[in-house]
Amino acid sequence: MANMHSPSETWANELVRVNLEERSYSINIGPGQLEHLPSGLSECVPKCRHGVIVFDENVRGIAERTQNLLTGVGFRSTMIDVPSGESSKCISSIERLWCRMLADHTDRGSVVLAVGGGVVGDLAGFAAAGFARGIPLVQIPTTLLSQVDSSVGGKTGINLPGAKNIVGAFWQPSLVVVDTQSLATLPAREYVSGLAEVVKYGVILLPEFLAYLEQNVAAILSKQPAALSHIIAESCRAKAAVVQQDERETTGLRAILNYGHTFAHALESVCGYGTLFHGEAVSIGMHMAANLAQLMGRVDEDFVRRQQTLLEQLQLPTKSPHADPEELWLAMQHDKKVEHGALRFILPSRIGHVELVPGVAKGLATAAIQAAR
Amino acid sequence: MANMHSPSETWANELVRVNLEERSYSINIGPGQLEHLPSGLSECVPKCRHGVIVFDENVRGIAERTQNLLTGVGFRSTMIDVPSGESSKCISSIERLWCRMLADHTDRGSVVLAVGGGVVGDLAGFAAAGFARGIPLVQIPTTLLSQVDSSVGGKTGINLPGAKNIVGAFWQPSLVVVDTQSLATLPAREYVSGLAEVVKYGVILLPEFLAYLEQNVAAILSKQPAALSHIIAESCRAKAAVVQQDERETTGLRAILNYGHTFAHALESVCGYGTLFHGEAVSIGMHMAANLAQLMGRVDEDFVRRQQTLLEQLQLPTKSPHADPEELWLAMQHDKKVEHGALRFILPSRIGHVELVPGVAKGLATAAIQAAR
Repeated sequence: MANMHSPSETWANELVRVNLEERSYSINIGPGQLEHLPSGLSECVPKCRHGVIVFDENVRGIAERTQNLLTGVGFRSTMIDVPSGESSKCISSIERLWCRMLADHTDRGSVVLAVGGGVVGDLAGFAAAGFARGIPLVQIPTTLLSQVDSSVGGKTGINLPGAKNIVGAFWQPSLVVVDTQSLATLPAREYVSGLAEVVKYGVILLPEFLAYLEQNVAAILSKQPAALSHIIAESCRAKAAVVQQDERETTGLRAILNYGHTFAHALESVCGYGTLFHGEAVSIGMHMAANLAQLMGRVDEDFVRRQQTLLEQLQLPTKSPHADPEELWLAMQHDKKVEHGALRFILPSRIGHVELVPGVAKGLATAAIQAAR
Repeated sequence: MANMHSPSETWANELVRVNLEERSYSINIGPGQLEHLPSGLSECVPKCRHGVIVFDENVRGIAERTQNLLTGVGFRSTMIDVPSGESSKCISSIERLWCRMLADHTDRGSVVLAVGGGVVGDLAGFAAAGFARGIPLVQIPTTLLSQVDSSVGGKTGINLPGAKNIVGAFWQPSLVVVDTQSLATLPAREYVSGLAEVVKYGVILLPEFLAYLEQNVAAILSKQPAALSHIIAESCRAKAAVVQQDERETTGLRAILNYGHTFAHALESVCGYGTLFHGEAVSIGMHMAANLAQLMGRVDEDFVRRQQTLLEQLQLPTKSPHADPEELWLAMQHDKKVEHGALRFILPSRIGHVELVPGVAKGLATAAIQAAR
């Protein structure tokens, strides 16, 4: 990745600080940021001399560049590839990681570097959290979704059959490196899918950022460097602000990040995981949530249309013609936000503000789904 | 267990508070303490209505009493038995626990109760730490060793082939219930083995407690209720004092708890795990460490003889006739306290005070082993 960007692009660098009780860390964002990894490591994990690079086989090139950079500053390194896809987030994968780490003499002087999307970040993060009861972790997310979502907040974990993310740990990274160059080769549908979470931050917290997105659709779709760094940095800042106030999901504030997600998880479950990309499901879910808020008199039609227009301009879906309202309602009963059988939704009251609304009746929810068909 | 002790024994109850950054909790110690579990739960985990009881098959009776107590206060419960022995601390055991917990609708309103010795405590503790990124844990240790050692301090974990406790988490319990009645049926060799760790606390931290032990050998060996509560409470207080100052093994202070353990781990490894009980290995290891300290001029012969006399009066071994010094030295090279090839030992300088001593030469260590043959 070295020298792949022109010097004029260095102004596109952004820095986000995440301040947590347990650990504070930096998110360094910009084109070519990976090249600064060695200085980041010497600052954040000065005692480490061994890197365990856990990577998605799709980004082997970035993993090898990471290894070269480590070698250049005298680190020993261990390369562990992980097959792409959600099925890698399982017990047998984490066992394989732990055994490989042990065989290659990993100890508290080692650091795990996760190179890839959310699957690798979650899996490698839990591997770091559990090995020797916790060794340092550096996240190097390479997809837009992981750059704006899973690399911030410290959630790590794996799936059990029938339950996503049911086993894991809160384990904050020591450093996050977001090299926006990694998005150059990301498939278009995956890139666009990540934009749904970016729009989400605007809707739930940041009216001015939502206006920025509306005014910069072309720059965003063409991956203009400064626009990329800005939307990632604003998203990370928004998520960090929420996570800082609710590090372990105890106050309930963190739930606002799930705007659109109750519908989205049900859509993913009903359509079969992988049919819809997560961001696509979130986009449709946000539209359903906006419809529900309108039906309940919390927002007007302008709100719904404004959000829908932006999502569609960013080439995201807002409708799911095949979604059966009854089937989705049933699937939503399994959501973690169900309490004593009544569904709770994150619903907007205006741009930049959402609330947790308990006790939503089935008729309203199915009508909101119907409006997004 | 109800009403198995006479009312006059209730003065034998002790309370130890462990104050940690992450979480503070009580250790309730005494005969019949299990009966007070319901009030403890309503205080420490008021939102829980479901208990996952993970128990050693050897103490099924205590687990069933625990279940009855939960049922009595309206808790739903899930019983999961674990085969006795170190081999249960493996990935497949933890996977089985997590799958059983999921199948029985465990969530953040559930609490894991570990009923058994160190193996069950470590395994169930890690199961609680990892499920839903952490649910509450109550330790109900039933062996002396787990009552004075593993139930305090929050270390949980499992083994990988060739590496003990290499995967795990720091996860503090919400409550520890030490019912000294559970020791009534503990096999004599296992009870005596636990006394080695009790003596350790006296030697490393508490001169007055060591004198108490010397003066109460008969009461201790006959499991006199007040003596039991006192030695367990003093041990827990000592461990808590250390853990409070070094919760995650970052300052190095916690290492003093490993007095005798570098030799002990090597003895266990060379003799084959299970041949020597852990406490027996610790007893021999403490004698070797005292010998080493004397060889280095750190303590006099009186120190060595005083420790040896107490250990032997408590029916603990201090010699290992079959231990080959060369073989033990090799085994010690795998210890976590090896740094750049030089062995570090926890060595006494007087009763109540030990230090981490780096760079111990091979000749001294093997001579100390030779002196304990």
